[in-house]
Amino acid sequence: MKQVIFFFTTVILLISCTPNPTIKTESFNPEWHETFPGVWNSIVNQLEDFNLLSVANKPPRKETLNQKSEQEFPISANEIQAFTKNGKTFLRFPLEKEEQIYGLGLNYKTVQQRGRILRLHMDHYGGTDNGRTHAPVPFYLSSKGYGVLINAARYIDVYVGTTVRTDTKNPPKLYDRNARDGWTAQPYSDNLEIVVPAEGVELVLFAGESMLDVVQRFNLYCGGGVLPPKWGLGFWQRTPTLYNTSDIQKEVHGFVENNFPLDVVGIEPGWHSKSYPCTFEWDKSRYPNPDEFAKNMNQQSIKLNLWMNPYIWPEGELYEKIKSYAGSHTVWNGIVPDYTIPEARNIMQEHFQTHLLDIGISGFKMDEVDGYDRWLWPDVATFPSGLDAEQMRQTYGTQMMTLTDEIYRKKNERTYGLIRAANAGSVSYPYVIYNDYYNHKDFITALINAGNCGVLWTPEVRSSRSGEEWMRRMQTTCFSPLAMLNAWASGTKPWSYPDVYEECREVAFLRMQMLPYLYSTFADYHFNGTPPFRGMNLEEGFETTVDIEESKLDETQNPYAEAVKKEVKDQYMMGDFLLVAPLFNGDEGRQVILPKGNWYDFYTGKFVGNGEIIQVEKGFERIPLFVKDGGIIPMMPAIRQTSDWKEDTPLEIRVYGEANGSFVLYDDDGATFDFEKGEYTTKMLKTENGNVSVLDLHQSENWVYGDLSWTFMTK
Amino acid sequence: MKQVIFFFTTVILLISCTPNPTIKTESFNPEWHETFPGVWNSIVNQLEDFNLLSVANKPPRKETLNQKSEQEFPISANEIQAFTKNGKTFLRFPLEKEEQIYGLGLNYKTVQQRGRILRLHMDHYGGTDNGRTHAPVPFYLSSKGYGVLINAARYIDVYVGTTVRTDTKNPPKLYDRNARDGWTAQPYSDNLEIVVPAEGVELVLFAGESMLDVVQRFNLYCGGGVLPPKWGLGFWQRTPTLYNTSDIQKEVHGFVENNFPLDVVGIEPGWHSKSYPCTFEWDKSRYPNPDEFAKNMNQQSIKLNLWMNPYIWPEGELYEKIKSYAGSHTVWNGIVPDYTIPEARNIMQEHFQTHLLDIGISGFKMDEVDGYDRWLWPDVATFPSGLDAEQMRQTYGTQMMTLTDEIYRKKNERTYGLIRAANAGSVSYPYVIYNDYYNHKDFITALINAGNCGVLWTPEVRSSRSGEEWMRRMQTTCFSPLAMLNAWASGTKPWSYPDVYEECREVAFLRMQMLPYLYSTFADYHFNGTPPFRGMNLEEGFETTVDIEESKLDETQNPYAEAVKKEVKDQYMMGDFLLVAPLFNGDEGRQVILPKGNWYDFYTGKFVGNGEIIQVEKGFERIPLFVKDGGIIPMMPAIRQTSDWKEDTPLEIRVYGEANGSFVLYDDDGATFDFEKGEYTTKMLKTENGNVSVLDLHQSENWVYGDLSWTFMTK
Repeated sequence: MKQVIFFFTTVILLISCTPNPTIKTESFNPEWHETFPGVWNSIVNQLEDFNLLSVANKPPRKETLNQKSEQEFPISANEIQAFTKNGKTFLRFPLEKEEQIYGLGLNYKTVQQRGRILRLHMDHYGGTDNGRTHAPVPFYLSSKGYGVLINAARYIDVYVGTTVRTDTKNPPKLYDRNARDGWTAQPYSDNLEIVVPAEGVELVLFAGESMLDVVQRFNLYCGGGVLPPKWGLGFWQRTPTLYNTSDIQKEVHGFVENNFPLDVVGIEPGWHSKSYPCTFEWDKSRYPNPDEFAKNMNQQSIKLNLWMNPYIWPEGELYEKIKSYAGSHTVWNGIVPDYTIPEARNIMQEHFQTHLLDIGISGFKMDEVDGYDRWLWPDVATFPSGLDAEQMRQTYGTQMMTLTDEIYRKKNERTYGLIRAANAGSVSYPYVIYNDYYNHKDFITALINAGNCGVLWTPEVRSSRSGEEWMRRMQTTCFSPLAMLNAWASGTKPWSYPDVYEECREVAFLRMQMLPYLYSTFADYHFNGTPPFRGMNLEEGFETTVDIEESKLDETQNPYAEAVKKEVKDQYMMGDFLLVAPLFNGDEGRQVILPKGNWYDFYTGKFVGNGEIIQVEKGFERIPLFVKDGGIIPMMPAIRQTSDWKEDTPLEIRVYGEANGSFVLYDDDGATFDFEKGEYTTKMLKTENGNVSVLDLHQSENWVYGDLSWTFMTK
Repeated sequence: MKQVIFFFTTVILLISCTPNPTIKTESFNPEWHETFPGVWNSIVNQLEDFNLLSVANKPPRKETLNQKSEQEFPISANEIQAFTKNGKTFLRFPLEKEEQIYGLGLNYKTVQQRGRILRLHMDHYGGTDNGRTHAPVPFYLSSKGYGVLINAARYIDVYVGTTVRTDTKNPPKLYDRNARDGWTAQPYSDNLEIVVPAEGVELVLFAGESMLDVVQRFNLYCGGGVLPPKWGLGFWQRTPTLYNTSDIQKEVHGFVENNFPLDVVGIEPGWHSKSYPCTFEWDKSRYPNPDEFAKNMNQQSIKLNLWMNPYIWPEGELYEKIKSYAGSHTVWNGIVPDYTIPEARNIMQEHFQTHLLDIGISGFKMDEVDGYDRWLWPDVATFPSGLDAEQMRQTYGTQMMTLTDEIYRKKNERTYGLIRAANAGSVSYPYVIYNDYYNHKDFITALINAGNCGVLWTPEVRSSRSGEEWMRRMQTTCFSPLAMLNAWASGTKPWSYPDVYEECREVAFLRMQMLPYLYSTFADYHFNGTPPFRGMNLEEGFETTVDIEESKLDETQNPYAEAVKKEVKDQYMMGDFLLVAPLFNGDEGRQVILPKGNWYDFYTGKFVGNGEIIQVEKGFERIPLFVKDGGIIPMMPAIRQTSDWKEDTPLEIRVYGEANGSFVLYDDDGATFDFEKGEYTTKMLKTENGNVSVLDLHQSENWVYGDLSWTFMTK
């Protein structure tokens, strides 16, 4: 008896004193399991039930992924290290000498991330690429043809080739700074190290034939990209905050009179009876009859997109229903519902359905789901689901996306909208990121980075200090996922700068003409995971020369000699063939870096260069566009609204250069989700030695195109 | 038997499944225990063995604290909330409507912290007051006469009156932003909320008769302020990096020839045989005979202060001894010893003793113990003591301070030096913070904030773009804890700008004249915890008007109407009586805000104002100084070196205004720690109705002063 008691007492003591035996605190090599060709998963210690992919709740595109090529595991698995200590999981991935790293979220000033430190934390971008941004995506992409996703809804610290371990196999060269013969403030680092503040984490590693292939597999793993409704790719005009129905009608008339494209009108906080926080009830004075108003707009082929932020006015029916599902803190006096709780989702969805979807509202602009810290709930906040503030902060945008996506799917009606927060896993959701920032060049860099990490971004136009600036901004928004003039505060119209109005109208109509190309490009996003807008780093044949500029040793400013890397972040690809090299206000021409291969001027078809730097001369008023050799760009007549993109639309199929080319032209009903069940048509347009052909791929009843005529642009 | 087995099995299962029962996850009111008058401690859940005060390892000044006045607990204890969840401890303290909050570290652009969010994280200051700074002290001070210390060596998030709970008893007014009648982006918040990433934390709460009394109690609790050696308060010249002994001798001669004060010469990285990382061995070519060199300098009454950073060159004797005590990562190829391990401390102390202290080196300038993230060890680093990278980051400076303090104490020789990282608890250590930043106005704001949180800061001079700027910077460094020209890169001398040399010489000698006042002020720091340099917020009779400026709603820049608070951060007190209101380069005069009471011009004795704003006119070349009514400023003859501050030094005791006044004049041997055993002398200088008296307080053999003559400055 005594022995039995002694035995059990010992066991009790041992168990009480031993930490959880399944958490590995000593460094180990994670085990990887291949789930699809070129896709491996690993659970380090434990998987948090709530993570980025669980919130996004979109399964991988299995069929397509399974058709991908087999790949070898791209890194030495025994050089990948992990351990967990004191509630944090530490990860280490090896880096090779010339390896470049991309991704890690929606950065605005840098593309290549090696040598940088980021704390991936949802926030409104603050002017520095420090990880605080609208899509702090913990996915990185390597120039060696692989990518890694850290699937955690946490604030993640990433040291991208800045840390040096004492036991490194690649010790940096040892310099005496006194000797002044090569000392650097940033010695060579052979690894990427990560802190995840959790007891464990899921890792997903992707390998591919190229960086683009890696991004495709990543996007497919997260469900494939979004295919917007056709109207979403038309022009968007957001109206001033306190506009009423007759103001909006006047606005719409203005677009008719001035003959400017218009598919979507954005209504700002003024539709709410109260905003900041929001009632989600129509304001009776500004919108006395929303049902009639929406019908009226729809009859003019205008879709309505409503502004909102998710903080609910603390009075009224909606509030009374949802308040018990709210977090501990208010944002501008509004409660913060916990949308991981099904009852809360249902309440909101019912409300949206009844008040908005049923009368024909087409989508939302979801504001302030990102930051700043001083506005949103703090990290001390608690939520009824038991999730903590950090987990909510990293995923609130995604929660809003899934919540609205569900009700539009129930209606079998595609939506397209705007949001200020996205993350890994949100690639298949119909939301484009925007923000309050406005540096034009940074806006283009963001467009590039969006393509590296599975989100969409729009460089909207709001205001300008000159006609030239206005024109340049109008040009880039028309070559982005969502062409928008966001005049919520400025009240500007496309014709607000008369001296450049013709150029603005021209580029807007050019976008409309290119919609067959753009829509097919988005179909490629959906079916194959190909980012429709992407940087040169994903383009075959593009050589980035990393130029190191040493800044002077100036001890009042910058006492350590530091290298500043130049990189290409002001030109990008739209689809497979089109290189966009925008001009910015004040530019006296610009350089364009062409990848290897022949490239041609979009407007004239003329050959411009091959794997070289060319110059766009001062005074070039259009947006500089270049086409790859063999590029095929199907274009339709210039229409003002996508409602005219209908049966028998003729196509001019432009062919550039001399190489053989092919392009999958896609069509569907442009509005419903039926395409997901096969209700779409694809035809391959081919050129071969000067001969053209059209090959049927997938058949359905949906095909708006009539006559196809081919134009060989390059004589 | 079966029942016994069953019983124990049940117990085992229960224990395995139940989380640690002593960690409170539900919100509770911490219990407070009064340890000294007006000082209460609370342990929330558990105390981390390793914390800021444990590292500083300096016991409270019990005798002095016990003589402090009794205070009531200053807040409603039942409004203080705490709980721990998922490894984090959350705290909440109430705030009242007009309550202002100060402290929270070495900020450079703001003094009043309410409405701000800080993540207290050791780092080199980066230009934004976001908590990343050289002294991220988790101590805050309330205008209601209390302060709170969060004793944790962690990255601490503090929301200073920005968060609003749904159950707040002081809900902010509810505004409809659409109505445009008072909506604010920052609704009223009635609390201060904190996240400490640990399973528990110790809190120390201080109450006092005034904010100054609170700071005194805080400083006394941490051991009382440092009393520098007398030579430390003389002038410091740091020489260019690669200077050798004859360069330095020339420099010293230059100070004699140009008749400029000089007590300390700073030697930069060039004394090391190799630096970045450091060998801690004298370079044989530049310093062939360091013993002789140091003797030679000492004979000229010059003290030597050596630059270092703590990262050790990975070759040689020192490295071989200490390498097994180093962390997992290198900094500039140097290892990072874990100085919480006694063996590591001993090795370094022995090395310093043998190579440096024994030959007469007087102190150190400890560089790069703060940041940046890209230089120092990352948060993934591990250390042999088991402490994590975060704990080491928050305290490495303090570890270096205690390590060197011990060996100087063993030698019974006071040191004074510079460092880039300090924290709560380091108040008694002889180190002044400096950095690579250089904005002059921000330098003065830092001086103010240092006084609010128990550290010292010097606005050093390095270079300038004009004589005027040079002069203004020289003026403020001479009215700071450590007057220094840090010419490590610029090679400047005080006379580098001939057109302002006389003004520079004048202010440097003025400092020397005022050393009896300044040294006594530091004694007050040591004995009573009174910060020698402090902001107007600690000054009785100073009314801060919080001016709210609304910035325009400009949607391209700043779309939300935000309030910008104006505060007084460019004038400060040196000691009890002297108000310093510096001029900055380009100033055309300046405003000075005088507290209530009569104030007098230091130079002329004339009355200038009472509780009002006065104007210093354009063209005022000296540094504007003002003296409180009844102010007593003992001054000695202008000496070049403190070695001349010796027996029979006459004093001119200046009296300002008409009120009665008193001042405790302090003296000791100026060099050893014997004063801590009572070997010091204090006399009270008093004026009463125009009559003067000198009252002996504490007697010892140490008294350098001879004749005392009184000058009534105000006629």
